[in-house]
Amino acid sequence: MTFVAIFVPYTSNKINIVLLYKEVSYTHTSFDGDKEMTTQPILLAETEIARLRNEVGRQSLMGKTIEENRKKVDAFMRLPLDVPGHGEAGGYEHNRHKQNYTHMNLAGHLFLITQEQKYAQFVKDLLAIYAEKYLTFNYHLQKNTNPTGRLFHQILNEHCWLMFSSLAYSCVASTMTETERTAVVEQLFEPMLQMFTVKYSHDFDRIHNHGIWAVAAVGICGLAINKREYLEMSVYGLDNNNTGGFLAQISQLFAPSGYYMEGPYYHRYAVHPLCLFAEVVHRHMSEVDIFNYKDGVIGNTVQALLSTAYPNGEFPALNDASRTMAITDTGVQIAVSLYSKHYGLNDNILGMAKIQDAVWMHPCGLVLSNAYEKATAEHEISLPFWPGVELNEGPDGRSGAQGFIRMQDKTGDVSQLVMNYGQHGMGHGHFDTLGITFYNRGQEVLREYGFCRWVNAEPKFGGRYLEENKSFARQTIAHNAITIDEQCQNGFDVERADSVHGLPHFFKVESSEIKGMSAFANDHYPNTGMQRSVFMLNIEELESPLLLDLYRIQATGVHQYDYAHNYDGQIVCTNFNYQSFSELSPLGEDFGYQHLWKVASGKAQEAAMVTWLQNHAYHTWLGTSSNNHNAIIFTRTGANDPNFNLRSEPAFILRSEGESTLFASVLETHGYFNEEFEQSVNARGQVKNIRILGYNAVGSIVEIITAKSLVTVMVSNLPGANDHTPHQVELNGKTYHWNGFYSLEVYALEQEK
Amino acid sequence: MTFVAIFVPYTSNKINIVLLYKEVSYTHTSFDGDKEMTTQPILLAETEIARLRNEVGRQSLMGKTIEENRKKVDAFMRLPLDVPGHGEAGGYEHNRHKQNYTHMNLAGHLFLITQEQKYAQFVKDLLAIYAEKYLTFNYHLQKNTNPTGRLFHQILNEHCWLMFSSLAYSCVASTMTETERTAVVEQLFEPMLQMFTVKYSHDFDRIHNHGIWAVAAVGICGLAINKREYLEMSVYGLDNNNTGGFLAQISQLFAPSGYYMEGPYYHRYAVHPLCLFAEVVHRHMSEVDIFNYKDGVIGNTVQALLSTAYPNGEFPALNDASRTMAITDTGVQIAVSLYSKHYGLNDNILGMAKIQDAVWMHPCGLVLSNAYEKATAEHEISLPFWPGVELNEGPDGRSGAQGFIRMQDKTGDVSQLVMNYGQHGMGHGHFDTLGITFYNRGQEVLREYGFCRWVNAEPKFGGRYLEENKSFARQTIAHNAITIDEQCQNGFDVERADSVHGLPHFFKVESSEIKGMSAFANDHYPNTGMQRSVFMLNIEELESPLLLDLYRIQATGVHQYDYAHNYDGQIVCTNFNYQSFSELSPLGEDFGYQHLWKVASGKAQEAAMVTWLQNHAYHTWLGTSSNNHNAIIFTRTGANDPNFNLRSEPAFILRSEGESTLFASVLETHGYFNEEFEQSVNARGQVKNIRILGYNAVGSIVEIITAKSLVTVMVSNLPGANDHTPHQVELNGKTYHWNGFYSLEVYALEQEK
Repeated sequence: MTFVAIFVPYTSNKINIVLLYKEVSYTHTSFDGDKEMTTQPILLAETEIARLRNEVGRQSLMGKTIEENRKKVDAFMRLPLDVPGHGEAGGYEHNRHKQNYTHMNLAGHLFLITQEQKYAQFVKDLLAIYAEKYLTFNYHLQKNTNPTGRLFHQILNEHCWLMFSSLAYSCVASTMTETERTAVVEQLFEPMLQMFTVKYSHDFDRIHNHGIWAVAAVGICGLAINKREYLEMSVYGLDNNNTGGFLAQISQLFAPSGYYMEGPYYHRYAVHPLCLFAEVVHRHMSEVDIFNYKDGVIGNTVQALLSTAYPNGEFPALNDASRTMAITDTGVQIAVSLYSKHYGLNDNILGMAKIQDAVWMHPCGLVLSNAYEKATAEHEISLPFWPGVELNEGPDGRSGAQGFIRMQDKTGDVSQLVMNYGQHGMGHGHFDTLGITFYNRGQEVLREYGFCRWVNAEPKFGGRYLEENKSFARQTIAHNAITIDEQCQNGFDVERADSVHGLPHFFKVESSEIKGMSAFANDHYPNTGMQRSVFMLNIEELESPLLLDLYRIQATGVHQYDYAHNYDGQIVCTNFNYQSFSELSPLGEDFGYQHLWKVASGKAQEAAMVTWLQNHAYHTWLGTSSNNHNAIIFTRTGANDPNFNLRSEPAFILRSEGESTLFASVLETHGYFNEEFEQSVNARGQVKNIRILGYNAVGSIVEIITAKSLVTVMVSNLPGANDHTPHQVELNGKTYHWNGFYSLEVYALEQEK
Repeated sequence: MTFVAIFVPYTSNKINIVLLYKEVSYTHTSFDGDKEMTTQPILLAETEIARLRNEVGRQSLMGKTIEENRKKVDAFMRLPLDVPGHGEAGGYEHNRHKQNYTHMNLAGHLFLITQEQKYAQFVKDLLAIYAEKYLTFNYHLQKNTNPTGRLFHQILNEHCWLMFSSLAYSCVASTMTETERTAVVEQLFEPMLQMFTVKYSHDFDRIHNHGIWAVAAVGICGLAINKREYLEMSVYGLDNNNTGGFLAQISQLFAPSGYYMEGPYYHRYAVHPLCLFAEVVHRHMSEVDIFNYKDGVIGNTVQALLSTAYPNGEFPALNDASRTMAITDTGVQIAVSLYSKHYGLNDNILGMAKIQDAVWMHPCGLVLSNAYEKATAEHEISLPFWPGVELNEGPDGRSGAQGFIRMQDKTGDVSQLVMNYGQHGMGHGHFDTLGITFYNRGQEVLREYGFCRWVNAEPKFGGRYLEENKSFARQTIAHNAITIDEQCQNGFDVERADSVHGLPHFFKVESSEIKGMSAFANDHYPNTGMQRSVFMLNIEELESPLLLDLYRIQATGVHQYDYAHNYDGQIVCTNFNYQSFSELSPLGEDFGYQHLWKVASGKAQEAAMVTWLQNHAYHTWLGTSSNNHNAIIFTRTGANDPNFNLRSEPAFILRSEGESTLFASVLETHGYFNEEFEQSVNARGQVKNIRILGYNAVGSIVEIITAKSLVTVMVSNLPGANDHTPHQVELNGKTYHWNGFYSLEVYALEQEK
């Protein structure tokens, strides 16, 4: 690799690199011989700053962003400066250092944009205190496997600190005296660089989402102090042999689809330094052609991340994740702005900007802001409606996938169905292969619990993961999946889980009448094959897309199956009798069951119906299995929870026992309830029944009866089938046949008068 | 009473009453001899209609209201017309009739404003179907004590139907043929009038909130069909002797303060016909001078209703009430608009209009819309900040009161404290005398459960009150009060409860440092005196007003006291150990206790501390009693709930046993948590302790220790005290004395370095 050859700045003398570019006048670190050097803003050129300045006071997204950032920084600047010593993770000290770097970065850029000296002064004053104190702080005591820093209990946070503070420094360095700069460089930045690249060299540029923060911090700081060698080792790795560094990371961290195996929550965290550093590399190492690198892996992975989001911008809480992390996260704001500039705009990007109501305070953000302004003048911006997408997993895309299907109802409301049939998410992985979530009318209907953690809430175990994250949130029973014999998938063994993955069967979203996906998971319970096929059906008389779910299990011997549905809201009615218990006991003893109160249960004749009300929407679920003995169990989290670490949330489980078994259910969203205005319409659903006509190794056949229609769905159970494979199933002397993965037939029923 | 003498229209021939007024050209029913008559719009004159028309398409509140109403009516008009037969309360038929009259009323007025014939046609077509069918419907079967109608299961709803449909008719009658009018009048309106005033005459004009609907409907319909005698009997009563009718109702239904004893939820329901009919009387019976009647009782009671609302516009759920009923209710919109026109505007009215984001589609609403437009151009409209108010109860204002105290923090956020020391609310009354609620940062912190009912949700018992409304929601233990010996106040005997009331001690809101109220309730438990004194304190180092609560009980013999706190959210930490139970059982057997799961409990040494997180805010409660043995019990609703009729909500109880006892607690709101942005600040409060120094029949003395201050509060326990009464209390050889109801002393503590 011969990257040095085209690297110009080091060889130029007093010639600003600006002159070498035509379209955009990038400012760059320049040299005055070998002695004097003035650090220039790393992310902004003079002409770009001027263009941002024009937005001040305007009602554009950029104008609003600048104003919001001013308010934030002004409020923070009213507090006394503080560089505290060691504290608890999530405690005051931890948060203060985070606030310090966040506000320094904003203030540095606001100084450039507004030309108000107070912002520069704030950065310089705070950096001076850090420079004075930094080396007086010892390293934190090691508490877990992460190396510790002098400011933070883990160097990940110290990486973040360095990245943002270096950017801030680059904005104000030209206004500092030589003495001031020297103090910051020698007592703060260089010791940090030393720590990251020498003391903790083993951990520096590895292929991990945390590694991106490390290389971005080191590369950016290197530029800020005119030590370009740090940029180079960040981009190409310490050993410069493709085993580490930014280029290796972005080549290897993501699947070909762009999906990141830990899930969107961690992906959006990685995307922050990823996009920032990509922009830096673009500006300061143009020879890499970073935005086209590896077929545009940066744009690809940003697109993959965005395409997972629910219609309101929240990310499905796959693996360890909060339920509220959304595209409004700062890192995703940067990603959306960067994507707009370097990969192009479309209606979904504009829709996301609408949700974000802000842009990156950078020329990339200005591109989006301008486009948004123009589009708004022409028409109302809609919320995003991303097409369905199957995101493959693994280095070659062959380790299963995550499926995301969307369908709009007549009012434009988007239903989204998510199924996990990919990899286990390593240490943050949940044991929920074939788990689904379902979203419509602005809320998750079949819900993920998310992680068990209150991030940064110091009295809640320092904001760290709580014990119940393992004992409940990651267990199979906490998810919308089937738990067999009250055991967790892969016995809650991370290593075993990481070694297997789901097997995609089909993913089809072309039709406007039916969209569906199906996958197998044969390595998650001993000697057990599982297949889940989920669909959204567009049926004329229904208000919203109907969720159809076929969950097939091929086991040896008789087992207990718990088909769990995590909902929220109030039970409205059922079609079966149940017994509410006068005393509550936990549903089981281990694998998450110990945390579920058994609240009520009943026996189901044929299809069991449960209607509940979640805020403004009614939902009716009808479910059955091919076994005779079905029971419905209503549960609520909270048992064995000595520190109130669990949220109290309801679920219902269809429990069945059998050998090979097919579960089938539908979920209808209907009606409207408004407590404030005391309105209620269509509190009862239109779907009357679901029946399993039969199933075997070739296919499964179910019938749904609505008030107006008889709907028959036949689904392929044949691994290796394709769009044309003929299927034939004999049931009670009747032969059903179809070609391809599934067949949908809708008959209008005679209406009673 | 000689009201006929000044009644002009009957005696005028072809002279439109319009001519008799100067300022506003009211249109009025006019006669052509004895034969021909053309009904004119009851609520609008031609020139007023023209002024409303000018608002179409504008962004004023009126313009937006018209547009919203158009959308609603247009959407409804796309459905086929339907006049269904009998159905369940809350079912389709019930709702459809409601929707029919609501949309007819809007359409009638939209026809006048927009001059679009389709709106008139809709009203005429629908009225024609009603006229055709009405007499073919039998009376509903009687299911409770309410008389039944032909459309609805209770005539209350039929009154509503008639009132709105008559208004609609008055807007379009001039476009109808004689035949069409005759059908509506003879087959629909007259039979209804007959039913209400003859068949159900015993129930017609009684002093009850439902009675206002009855007289408004009959009076307005009388005008619409030119039978003014119905207006007269509505205003003066069937017997014209001050025992019934509108004037008697408004004279007797409300306390001198304007408070309505059933509480804001039922008050806002009554205020709808109250305001509509008042405006009608103003226009068509000017001799009554309705808006000045009885010292302006209409304005007084509207003002009283509005002054109960929380800062976000929601009404405290006193007695049977939903937690979400708010000033956005249509009736309250009319009330706010009417108040603006006839009683004047102020910043709080404008603030309420901001929450409502709409006005009454009437000249009264135009006054408000215009004022709002003018004010908005000058400054940003703030949310309302009503002054503290004590609303007395009973015909002479001597049956206790409801207290509402508000205090703003430095950011402008309003904390509101509500205490009930008035009357029992009759059949809808809750047994919660001395109960409190507390609100800040946009949410109720110490919460009312509200009623147990899903209004209009047909599968939930037809939307009617559920069994658990009696067995839980109305019981003392469901409220933020003290329950003695696991019994309900007044043994859940409505009649007994209606015969007693709280005794106000003081209500003082002048100081910016401390605002408080205190009251006795000596007739609610046998041989037991109770006094509750609640304050909001403005203490420099605290972010929000501190709630201080002293609850004193004077009993004979030893009793068990449960001092309950209904909160929402997640427990963050406590200062005592507690045991979470591995099996749950109900906390008790009756009086609401059977519905509470006993989740965890612990013993409290000195003051018990509980910190919880509710959405974005942390709350820390510290409580103690003058007894030695205090226990904290954590509960959750849901036990003995066979139909999932209860919401699952948490509470904690400080339980103590003793004879005469003082409970003291503080509640601090602090910090900020944002899960989406992973921010947490000040998760721990500043208040460290609360101690009871002592108490006796003269006074109670407590000490609050914060991180920076020692706060001493001394409170009068002397009934009959006044602002100057000297108080002296000896405790452990020390003498405390103060004058008046209470004393507040704040000492700065030495700060540790």
